[in-house]
Amino acid sequence: MSDTDISRRRLLGTAGAAGAAGLVLGAGGGALGHAAAAGSPTALSTVGSTSVAFHGEHQAGITDRQQSHGRLAAFDLAPGAGRREAAALMRRWSALAAELMAGRPAGDGDTGVALDAGPCSLTVTFGFGRSFFDRTGLTAARPEQLDPLPVFSADRIDPKRSEGDLWVQIGADDALVAFHALHAIRRAAGQAAGPRWEMGGFNRSPGATGQPMTARNLMGQIDGTGNPKPSEPDFRQRVFVPRDTEHAWMAGGSYAVVRRIRMLLDDWERLAPDAQEKVIGRRKSDGAPLTGGTETTEPDLEAVGPDGSLVIPANAHARISAPEQNGGAAMLRRPFSYHDGPGEDGAPDAGLLFVCWQADPLRGFVPVQRKLDRGDALSAFIRHEASGLFAVPPGAAEGEYVGQRLLEG
Amino acid sequence: MSDTDISRRRLLGTAGAAGAAGLVLGAGGGALGHAAAAGSPTALSTVGSTSVAFHGEHQAGITDRQQSHGRLAAFDLAPGAGRREAAALMRRWSALAAELMAGRPAGDGDTGVALDAGPCSLTVTFGFGRSFFDRTGLTAARPEQLDPLPVFSADRIDPKRSEGDLWVQIGADDALVAFHALHAIRRAAGQAAGPRWEMGGFNRSPGATGQPMTARNLMGQIDGTGNPKPSEPDFRQRVFVPRDTEHAWMAGGSYAVVRRIRMLLDDWERLAPDAQEKVIGRRKSDGAPLTGGTETTEPDLEAVGPDGSLVIPANAHARISAPEQNGGAAMLRRPFSYHDGPGEDGAPDAGLLFVCWQADPLRGFVPVQRKLDRGDALSAFIRHEASGLFAVPPGAAEGEYVGQRLLEG
Repeated sequence: MSDTDISRRRLLGTAGAAGAAGLVLGAGGGALGHAAAAGSPTALSTVGSTSVAFHGEHQAGITDRQQSHGRLAAFDLAPGAGRREAAALMRRWSALAAELMAGRPAGDGDTGVALDAGPCSLTVTFGFGRSFFDRTGLTAARPEQLDPLPVFSADRIDPKRSEGDLWVQIGADDALVAFHALHAIRRAAGQAAGPRWEMGGFNRSPGATGQPMTARNLMGQIDGTGNPKPSEPDFRQRVFVPRDTEHAWMAGGSYAVVRRIRMLLDDWERLAPDAQEKVIGRRKSDGAPLTGGTETTEPDLEAVGPDGSLVIPANAHARISAPEQNGGAAMLRRPFSYHDGPGEDGAPDAGLLFVCWQADPLRGFVPVQRKLDRGDALSAFIRHEASGLFAVPPGAAEGEYVGQRLLEG
Repeated sequence: MSDTDISRRRLLGTAGAAGAAGLVLGAGGGALGHAAAAGSPTALSTVGSTSVAFHGEHQAGITDRQQSHGRLAAFDLAPGAGRREAAALMRRWSALAAELMAGRPAGDGDTGVALDAGPCSLTVTFGFGRSFFDRTGLTAARPEQLDPLPVFSADRIDPKRSEGDLWVQIGADDALVAFHALHAIRRAAGQAAGPRWEMGGFNRSPGATGQPMTARNLMGQIDGTGNPKPSEPDFRQRVFVPRDTEHAWMAGGSYAVVRRIRMLLDDWERLAPDAQEKVIGRRKSDGAPLTGGTETTEPDLEAVGPDGSLVIPANAHARISAPEQNGGAAMLRRPFSYHDGPGEDGAPDAGLLFVCWQADPLRGFVPVQRKLDRGDALSAFIRHEASGLFAVPPGAAEGEYVGQRLLEG
């Protein structure tokens, strides 16, 4: 997908709002069109009316604008369910996701929760975990990219909230629309699969800040500055699996690494602002490197201060995670923040639902995380509490379902 | 506060946006103005720029428009802390809430999480639980309205997530702004008080639906139709404690009943849509009574169908909860939905963070809930899992803090 295509997907979505708003109630009262309560419907703002296409070369929810609400969920196939049941499930889920993302109801059994609302930029993205392939007798089709991630020293991984046969990422600019989508997905799983874990997160609401603005995380840092940009020539190549891949069913797909990264906020906030800035290597106010300029200025990694020490310290996060320090390894970070109240230890159970996208985790997340694990000053203030690695197949064409080339290959 | 005053509070807030956007960074870098990153600030939309006044006759967060994100938290005073520490805490919290609601940082130790964002209609509301009065030696000043609520048959109350010395309600149209406010409140509690429980919830995002639109809950029902309206002559009298009250420190205050009401969604969704409508007594599509009209049409409680049975059944929620069926008892419901993933039983831990406001719970929540408890068809599909009752003092004037008339009376 070219940059133009990426933009067009969103523009088409917005332009399609009139269609969504024009849905009418089915005569029988059973089919409930969203954004179509009785009486004359009033206009939705772009927050409500924007839709993202389900069908396409790639799945949605990877390069699209990050929404304000996210739900991540993993499901395990039920005992006895195999390839046939998995194929039927992916067919059901794909059809459902296409309806919901277009702002239409989830079939006759729609619960009505998203009624009155537009699609709100809903995306539903499906992935397969390592265990999925054994469960479905497809071990031979499993890419080596799904080999277990290395164990890192800052890991305190809870296996119950990690991995899973199937992964679903939901994003939307309205919390009820996101709830509705996940709930419909759960219902549509039927007897084929049950919930393994679920997490909810958030980003800025559209309009809460001036635009454009890189997001902040719960440490107060601008987060995502170093992301590959769609305008860069190797963007596609970094994010999407190439056509000539060994496992053809993954051509045009991507790999998602999901990490629940708790922030040790009480420790972090004991640091003075200038000490926090040295840990990151960037200014807190605007994300500019400590060597000056603006957020988009290249850091000067060689610059030294009056006392002869590096301006961006040797263990600063921005230095260690820079692609040029990692043989060009890069990934597209598309996280949500989370806050689930006080943890059992009394400190905030808060941090980042880190989701990153890459053509190959062995040339994306793994080398970067290995480097961070050895020398990143930020490591003392974070803890990885859950982990998942998922193969996210390419988008489905009209009439196809996600994963069809694997499950019927 | 007259209706005009209520409107004016919000209009002033919106008009004040230019002020919030104009904040600049302090010279020392320690004072971080929100919506004021380096570089030329771009305009916020009204989602970001709207502010609500902290000072006033009543606290904010009672009659204001419901925001899209909510955080409810209870704190208990620390062992050894009494009236003096409570007074100092309420002084700190009030000063902090006034800054945050104006879109300004939380003092020198501001964590930067809300940086770049406008006030986003943030409200911070404080209340005192029954236990607060014994802890502070103020038992004689405790109104009888804080006597424990009756036990209802659908109650499955978890005391660890109920009541508390101090209650804080936070609402905002941006999740990071809401997080930032609660986190700052927690930090400002210092050694005086610690977290008892915390819950997060949500409502529709501004712009997700056409306007105006009554909210839907996670059962898919339009929820809040029967709320008292600011245009009704007895609105103030229902919501706010009168001037001539026995405990003068509560004049202009209100009582909040907080209930975590879990929805048994799997059971609910097994009902066909028309059966759901009979449970509620209203149409799911638009909230109109089953006797016809629109959402705002009065239900015809006497109407019978062709078979001679009541169109709005005898046990329909809308009938049982109607003020005319409860001696005029009414409360202002201002809830958030919640969804905390699957519960321990595998079913969704989802429902309503029910918050209702009234001048006297013995003429608001209690008689209505007693009636519902005896005959409401909806009772089979919900479960009250946590409960709190809080005295919410009147608003503080400039230079005052919330609860000052109690704590220094």
